[in-house]
Amino acid sequence: MGEQITLSNDAGALFHVPQAEFRRLLDLPLAPPERAALFADLCRLNTLYMITRAGSGHIGSSFSSLDIVSWLHLCVLRPGHDLYFSSKGHDAPGLYAVLTALGALPFEKIHGLRRLGGLPGHPDVAIPGMVANTGSLGMGISKAKGMAEADRVAGRPPRRLFVLTGDGELQEGQVWESLVSAANRHSDGIVAIVDHNKLQSDTFVRRVSDLGDLEAKFRAFGWSVMRADGHDIPAVAAALDALLALPGPRVLIADTVKGRGVSFMEHTALRPEQEFYRFHSGAPSRPDYARATQELADRINGRLAAAGAAPLALEVETVPATAAPPGVRLIPAYTEALLDAAERHPHLVALDADLILDTGLIPFRDRFPDRFIECGIAEQDMVSQASGMALAGLLPVVHSFACFLTARPNEQIYNACSEGKRIVFVGSLAGLLPAGPGHSHQSVRDLAAMGAMPGLTMVEPSCPAAVGPLLRWCLEAAPAASYLRLVSIPCDVPFALPDGWTPEPGRGTVLRPGRDGAVIAYGPVMLTEAWHALDRLEREHGLRLSLIDLPWLNRVDPDWLAETLTGMPLAVSIDNHFRIGGQGDRIAEALAARSGSPPLLRFCVDRLPDCGRNDEVLKAHGLDRDSLAAGILARLRP
Amino acid sequence: MGEQITLSNDAGALFHVPQAEFRRLLDLPLAPPERAALFADLCRLNTLYMITRAGSGHIGSSFSSLDIVSWLHLCVLRPGHDLYFSSKGHDAPGLYAVLTALGALPFEKIHGLRRLGGLPGHPDVAIPGMVANTGSLGMGISKAKGMAEADRVAGRPPRRLFVLTGDGELQEGQVWESLVSAANRHSDGIVAIVDHNKLQSDTFVRRVSDLGDLEAKFRAFGWSVMRADGHDIPAVAAALDALLALPGPRVLIADTVKGRGVSFMEHTALRPEQEFYRFHSGAPSRPDYARATQELADRINGRLAAAGAAPLALEVETVPATAAPPGVRLIPAYTEALLDAAERHPHLVALDADLILDTGLIPFRDRFPDRFIECGIAEQDMVSQASGMALAGLLPVVHSFACFLTARPNEQIYNACSEGKRIVFVGSLAGLLPAGPGHSHQSVRDLAAMGAMPGLTMVEPSCPAAVGPLLRWCLEAAPAASYLRLVSIPCDVPFALPDGWTPEPGRGTVLRPGRDGAVIAYGPVMLTEAWHALDRLEREHGLRLSLIDLPWLNRVDPDWLAETLTGMPLAVSIDNHFRIGGQGDRIAEALAARSGSPPLLRFCVDRLPDCGRNDEVLKAHGLDRDSLAAGILARLRP
Repeated sequence: MGEQITLSNDAGALFHVPQAEFRRLLDLPLAPPERAALFADLCRLNTLYMITRAGSGHIGSSFSSLDIVSWLHLCVLRPGHDLYFSSKGHDAPGLYAVLTALGALPFEKIHGLRRLGGLPGHPDVAIPGMVANTGSLGMGISKAKGMAEADRVAGRPPRRLFVLTGDGELQEGQVWESLVSAANRHSDGIVAIVDHNKLQSDTFVRRVSDLGDLEAKFRAFGWSVMRADGHDIPAVAAALDALLALPGPRVLIADTVKGRGVSFMEHTALRPEQEFYRFHSGAPSRPDYARATQELADRINGRLAAAGAAPLALEVETVPATAAPPGVRLIPAYTEALLDAAERHPHLVALDADLILDTGLIPFRDRFPDRFIECGIAEQDMVSQASGMALAGLLPVVHSFACFLTARPNEQIYNACSEGKRIVFVGSLAGLLPAGPGHSHQSVRDLAAMGAMPGLTMVEPSCPAAVGPLLRWCLEAAPAASYLRLVSIPCDVPFALPDGWTPEPGRGTVLRPGRDGAVIAYGPVMLTEAWHALDRLEREHGLRLSLIDLPWLNRVDPDWLAETLTGMPLAVSIDNHFRIGGQGDRIAEALAARSGSPPLLRFCVDRLPDCGRNDEVLKAHGLDRDSLAAGILARLRP
Repeated sequence: MGEQITLSNDAGALFHVPQAEFRRLLDLPLAPPERAALFADLCRLNTLYMITRAGSGHIGSSFSSLDIVSWLHLCVLRPGHDLYFSSKGHDAPGLYAVLTALGALPFEKIHGLRRLGGLPGHPDVAIPGMVANTGSLGMGISKAKGMAEADRVAGRPPRRLFVLTGDGELQEGQVWESLVSAANRHSDGIVAIVDHNKLQSDTFVRRVSDLGDLEAKFRAFGWSVMRADGHDIPAVAAALDALLALPGPRVLIADTVKGRGVSFMEHTALRPEQEFYRFHSGAPSRPDYARATQELADRINGRLAAAGAAPLALEVETVPATAAPPGVRLIPAYTEALLDAAERHPHLVALDADLILDTGLIPFRDRFPDRFIECGIAEQDMVSQASGMALAGLLPVVHSFACFLTARPNEQIYNACSEGKRIVFVGSLAGLLPAGPGHSHQSVRDLAAMGAMPGLTMVEPSCPAAVGPLLRWCLEAAPAASYLRLVSIPCDVPFALPDGWTPEPGRGTVLRPGRDGAVIAYGPVMLTEAWHALDRLEREHGLRLSLIDLPWLNRVDPDWLAETLTGMPLAVSIDNHFRIGGQGDRIAEALAARSGSPPLLRFCVDRLPDCGRNDEVLKAHGLDRDSLAAGILARLRP
């Protein structure tokens, strides 16, 4: 064991390995596998730093992959001849740590994970060293095939393309779709590496949707397969060497430990009664951070001492932990509403795609285990199963994040809607915020993707009190399928719906009266910003605009709208969504159909969403209260 | 050999087996497999009748599956206890023949294939005996799993669920996605049958995207597998019996012949130099029809004679063959434009998903074989490959039918757009027509699904002369990705663009002038209907409206629009698409933003598209010239 150092006890202290230390340690006279293992631990320290500072990120997958990623970058990849990228993408912090350490990415970027202009939560090609946009699962091998074809067409020497996938990710059909032609085309350059860390988002892969004999599956698809302990670097090196000598597309199944490198973060530390792994996403608590950093630093210093080198010199900064943001949350209200509905509807079933924690389904599963269907990361299969269930008399409620639910199984949803049965699609994590995960997860295109499903009605509750009535409407009154769109972040909602509020299709509720214009919006994020914008306009400019909660996202009652806007000089629509397909389109259509309507001013997302802190991103897109107030004022008092 | 009959030589004569003859023949004292083989041939006769009368349909797959489907319906399925449906769905005519013969579907329906109120081109649950909407590939096993779960949740005895799939269909990732949980849940009730007829839409499966060792693949996914000659009914029976005794989900790989039952329609009759199979879709020529019917009738009568039974009494009707509709086609213009572009752009590559015939790519493939990538029925993989190619410097042009291209890989397209590279998505078979295949193929939701892709521009040419300039704009001027939407049916276009027309983003071209209102539309189908509607309004009512071709589907220049509409009492928008997401939404937005705009009257698809003859369906949706004229007149002269 090496020299013990004790890290500062300062509650706000965050430590990172400076680049000079990486250079020093890479120059130590160590065998390459030893050097890579040491380097991986240094990167773990910086990964932990980045994620803790950002307040969110994926530790578990970064840590499980870091030994492999370090080995690849130190000893396998030939610059200009090989490419590496991660298909799962949420292991980005680990990769950023490697690239900043090696100077492939400006070092100071490590201070800006999930910040505007910093390093996005999932890979984006705008960042040096990022080869492809990933984070939506299952696309990596297809992308690598396209890159291999490009080399061939351009007449370049073929590169070797190393693609890391998750194991839960293998539940996506696209992965198997992508394997077939790689084998038929003898894509020699592609090496897939499965980071088989045994856990997916919620819990163990084998509990969610067991992969069975993974080696047999890949072999049956015509791929050469090797298997190795992904933390035994000499074994990884030998397996890669052996694989590279085999023909055709190749896969290394690397058995890894999620959270590897910090004892209490390793999934193998889960006790038998613990179902859920705590370090998949989110940030560690500050005490957990301090323990983990200490453990890593101790191990590193032990290795350094054994090599006769001076201990690690960490840099420290004081970054106070941010308190949990205030506000109410819709997901717990949804959980309650769903339980209540399930009591009333014995044929209600809930389907999930490996997001049971985030979609609020744990109490449902525990109370109605026979009516809960865990589908794994297999959204297409989930939706078509729901269609079969609905045809056979059940009332399916289908859950995922809005970004995935509305896009991956888009054709399956259309097919289900064409059958005319009642199915409720529930998309959480909807809208521009949270902005930390980046555009693969920011769902600002879901209304466009879902709006024209025949017979489907889209609704979004503005506050917890609206969740139950809207879910009930979807389950009991909707003409056919429906889409319940849920914001997942806490919101400090300043308004309230009237007691006993019930949904009236196509009609909204006035949250505050006014005569100088009417602002129509939906959901807690934008209604809250709008409320404060109108406060300011009233306080500072004497302008009183009404604020209307219109929870119907693809239908507007034109008579209600005309009546509501009578005498108003301006209508304002605010979308937590792209312009195209947003609620503003429906308002515009109703206004355009009649002569003499007031003009419509729209606020909405107009480009690929930025990644960053929520306040930064809201402002960058002109959707914060200040921008709204300024935009409305400029129109009313030009 | 039995008694020879000679069918009428009348060029318009179509023959069908009446229901009484089915009853007679089912009562013959034959062994069950012999009876099923005879029944299958009778059904082949009626399938041929239906498709020839309809003018389109899928003979090859109906014939390859009919021996199996007949055996199942005569000797395996227990009413109320078992369900059968086809996942591929385009074998519907064969199944309709079986169900009408058995009285499960009103017999007179055989006269209404692909007609309004008749039998749709692909299965729809509104039709008796149709268990699920299929025709979009790859969903069947998922749906069966949902039905099995429904039996469990409802506490019903589990049904046996027989699902037929194609072999080309197995290229869809959803199939493999769906296999995993079936194995994990020990879904004993599910029996998949692969109609392994060796050909997919265009040509041989092994040429498009070889499936490799299919048995090994299913086994690796935990399924029990049997294999049999799908035309040897005793072998099929034995294999099904053996399978049903095995645990877990089960699959029968049935080796079949596409077009089985008519010698010159069997794929095995293809000569080595023949690449394409002629009887996948479409209707046979009348001489081919007569030959095929004669061959089937001869074989049937031979069997009847051997059984000592009277020969077949066919009913005959005279239905003259409809001439090929007049008009111009966009696809040949597209082929030329693409070839021209490929000469100019050495990095242009074309990707296809098993629709090389329909998307007009054969000349491209023949001239640029190294730049043509056949992806098989694997749209997700195709799009992510294109994304990899674009990242690596190629200029990918991605092809499929609009209905599939914009929906199945919807998330992959978003991901590709997020990378900001230039990729051209080309969707043919766009819009409400042709209406014969039914709603799985009628693409009236593609603009909604694509409109909010960040940076993506959508365009649609109105006539052959517009195809080249718009493709060139997409390839050379578009800011990033684009979507080129192509109508596939021939149109008798009455208008012309000015010589040397070039696209101006967001701006339209006046095809005919007028002052009583402005009609804005796109594409040859609706511009042609609108032209004739305006002709009538002018001729019969003295109203002169202008007609504007606006090829930009998700952007409108608001200044151009305001100027164009100056002094107009009415704006009219016509969408070959659903209301939501159509071009009308963009026009409405531009109009709603300004005070004093004329009111907007919209024509569009407002419900799930009807299946039928093109003229029937256009009228049923109020989009034919008469309905347009009446609607505009009612607004201008209320």
